[in-house]
Amino acid sequence: MSEPVVAPPGLKNVIVADTSIGEVRGAEGFFHYRPYDATELATQRTFEECWHLLFDGRLPTADELSRFRAEIAGQRQIPEPVAAVLPQIASVGSDRQTLQRLRTALSQLGSAEAFAPVWGADPARVRADALRLAAVTPAIQAALYRLRNGEEPIAPEPGLSAGANWLHMITGQIPTAEHERAINTYLGLTIEHGFNASTFTARVVASSGSDVASAVCAAIGTFVGPLHGGAPDRALDALDEIGSPDRVREWARAKITTGARIMGFGHGVYTTEDPRARTLREVARDLGGPLADFAIATETEIVAALAELKPGRNLYANVEFYAGVVMEQCGVPRALFTPTFACARVVGWGAHIIEQSQETKIFRPLARYVGLPAPQPLD
Amino acid sequence: MSEPVVAPPGLKNVIVADTSIGEVRGAEGFFHYRPYDATELATQRTFEECWHLLFDGRLPTADELSRFRAEIAGQRQIPEPVAAVLPQIASVGSDRQTLQRLRTALSQLGSAEAFAPVWGADPARVRADALRLAAVTPAIQAALYRLRNGEEPIAPEPGLSAGANWLHMITGQIPTAEHERAINTYLGLTIEHGFNASTFTARVVASSGSDVASAVCAAIGTFVGPLHGGAPDRALDALDEIGSPDRVREWARAKITTGARIMGFGHGVYTTEDPRARTLREVARDLGGPLADFAIATETEIVAALAELKPGRNLYANVEFYAGVVMEQCGVPRALFTPTFACARVVGWGAHIIEQSQETKIFRPLARYVGLPAPQPLD
Repeated sequence: MSEPVVAPPGLKNVIVADTSIGEVRGAEGFFHYRPYDATELATQRTFEECWHLLFDGRLPTADELSRFRAEIAGQRQIPEPVAAVLPQIASVGSDRQTLQRLRTALSQLGSAEAFAPVWGADPARVRADALRLAAVTPAIQAALYRLRNGEEPIAPEPGLSAGANWLHMITGQIPTAEHERAINTYLGLTIEHGFNASTFTARVVASSGSDVASAVCAAIGTFVGPLHGGAPDRALDALDEIGSPDRVREWARAKITTGARIMGFGHGVYTTEDPRARTLREVARDLGGPLADFAIATETEIVAALAELKPGRNLYANVEFYAGVVMEQCGVPRALFTPTFACARVVGWGAHIIEQSQETKIFRPLARYVGLPAPQPLD
Repeated sequence: MSEPVVAPPGLKNVIVADTSIGEVRGAEGFFHYRPYDATELATQRTFEECWHLLFDGRLPTADELSRFRAEIAGQRQIPEPVAAVLPQIASVGSDRQTLQRLRTALSQLGSAEAFAPVWGADPARVRADALRLAAVTPAIQAALYRLRNGEEPIAPEPGLSAGANWLHMITGQIPTAEHERAINTYLGLTIEHGFNASTFTARVVASSGSDVASAVCAAIGTFVGPLHGGAPDRALDALDEIGSPDRVREWARAKITTGARIMGFGHGVYTTEDPRARTLREVARDLGGPLADFAIATETEIVAALAELKPGRNLYANVEFYAGVVMEQCGVPRALFTPTFACARVVGWGAHIIEQSQETKIFRPLARYVGLPAPQPLD
């Protein structure tokens, strides 16, 4: 065996796998799903077309799309062993612990339904499991939310788009065309985004030969923390804290000079504008209203303050800043901001689990021992 | 930014972190916890002493051990919001889906109790959460097992050792001194073992700033598959399949020549005898009986067949072969073999989560896009 190689902290800038699912080009402010610009897909194609593209490798024909939509619709039912525990899952924890509750329910689903070990599995079987899990996730998440608020869950409507279904299952209202389009764009933009902590986690778990439910439950765990997935509601909390446009400058400078993190700004991979933020800024502007104006003014001030006080760091608004704005404009409750993200990303995780299932190598890196010299005598 | 580096598949031979928790020296057949030989610890010290060593950095004095045992005993209670769903969790899935059920219950615990985000947290707080989770895991797992079999859960006994408590909570019987010692040795041997897929998963999730319950639920997911954690029961199933010592040679040669995997043999890191297998072989021999004789004879034949038919591969019995034998000798039901492992390893995961909580870098590697060139026009 050759000498071990020391990777940089966090595996930064280390390629750990090949993928044909997509790519993030940080320096260009560009990302794509398969060979297509993801922002074009999100604004011009439906969520299900993107889902088909990621799972089956190409955009569907009209016939394929119709069959695919029917396949998804048939996999949205919450099975009895999961439905039975939802009230008790819904009642625990704080209002914002939505992802932990989703994970509990999906873990129960993983026991109730026989998800296959992905190692050596027929890819069609892994695909079916991933599709099942991604299809049922919004229904479970919305049911948990309504049960927590003492309301009856609302069944998915097969005829609605992904975004309209999601808003309908949360609120009981068929959304306006503007809100539907805005949420669909958000969902389409956030399906997939390279080897971030959640996707990497899903692939590490899948590499052990585990099942789709295990890999997704693991990935959800990374959304709970402050560094990945959990920022859109905190970004909007910050807007509340600022209160009005004339206070932004002072607020931003105070945050930056005390070393506090400003949620919704800066990105580990993009060194230029986050293309998702750019697209969602337009969505927010089209939806209009005082929040959009306030958010755009705030972004301008914060980016200027960051450029002045942290020169050369290339800090811009990231997806989470405008994600929060758009979801608030569409009436999504703040506790469901990150879960909305999860409803899209579970499709991306699924695509990665399918791809990983065709690899034979378990992720098993090394650590370097830096403690007291061993062995020392016990007594 | 410098050019990305391409890591070998599975991050094999790549150092991804520093640790002072322990080390596996594959070529020497040696592993240690902090500075002490782990096999010496497992045979000469209690599980709680090893736990204290991993969590607090040193072996406890008599007073410290007494306080530590009391602290653990105080954290073993199953809270009402978890107890309330255990019957419904216990009733789903196949008999061997024990780990999925454990994960569902621990995920519910993670919502019911306010586990802290580990990023930027006081290490004492992360330690308290990790101790709580590791302390309650055996009680929850045993309760799920008994409920599934229509039996009342048995509360932990503060006066019993870890191994005796585990056997008592499963069977309702106080075990013999021989069985207690054997299980304690097994538990002590399997607390920690480097950056395998489960520990690495726990650290990746923790690096996102998530909480202890999220990191442990993720790690449990890797135990579900065939490549990590799930082999001791399958190794014993293989002994059943062989049936008698005179059939081993033929069986092993048939397996090897058809390219089938023999569960319980070979290891990703050890190129010599697995020290855990060596220690557990002695435990099995001391417990005695026909299963021990059969297992030792089987090991000899399989290792010989592997040496002949796969020369230069250095394939030996690994921990899982004798783990299965010892647990069977002690009356642990086969569905609880891997969960017994999890009851020990959850302590190791906890130590790693505590250590990871003091790092500031999220794991965010790169993938190399190898699909069709992008961007291609949408229409």
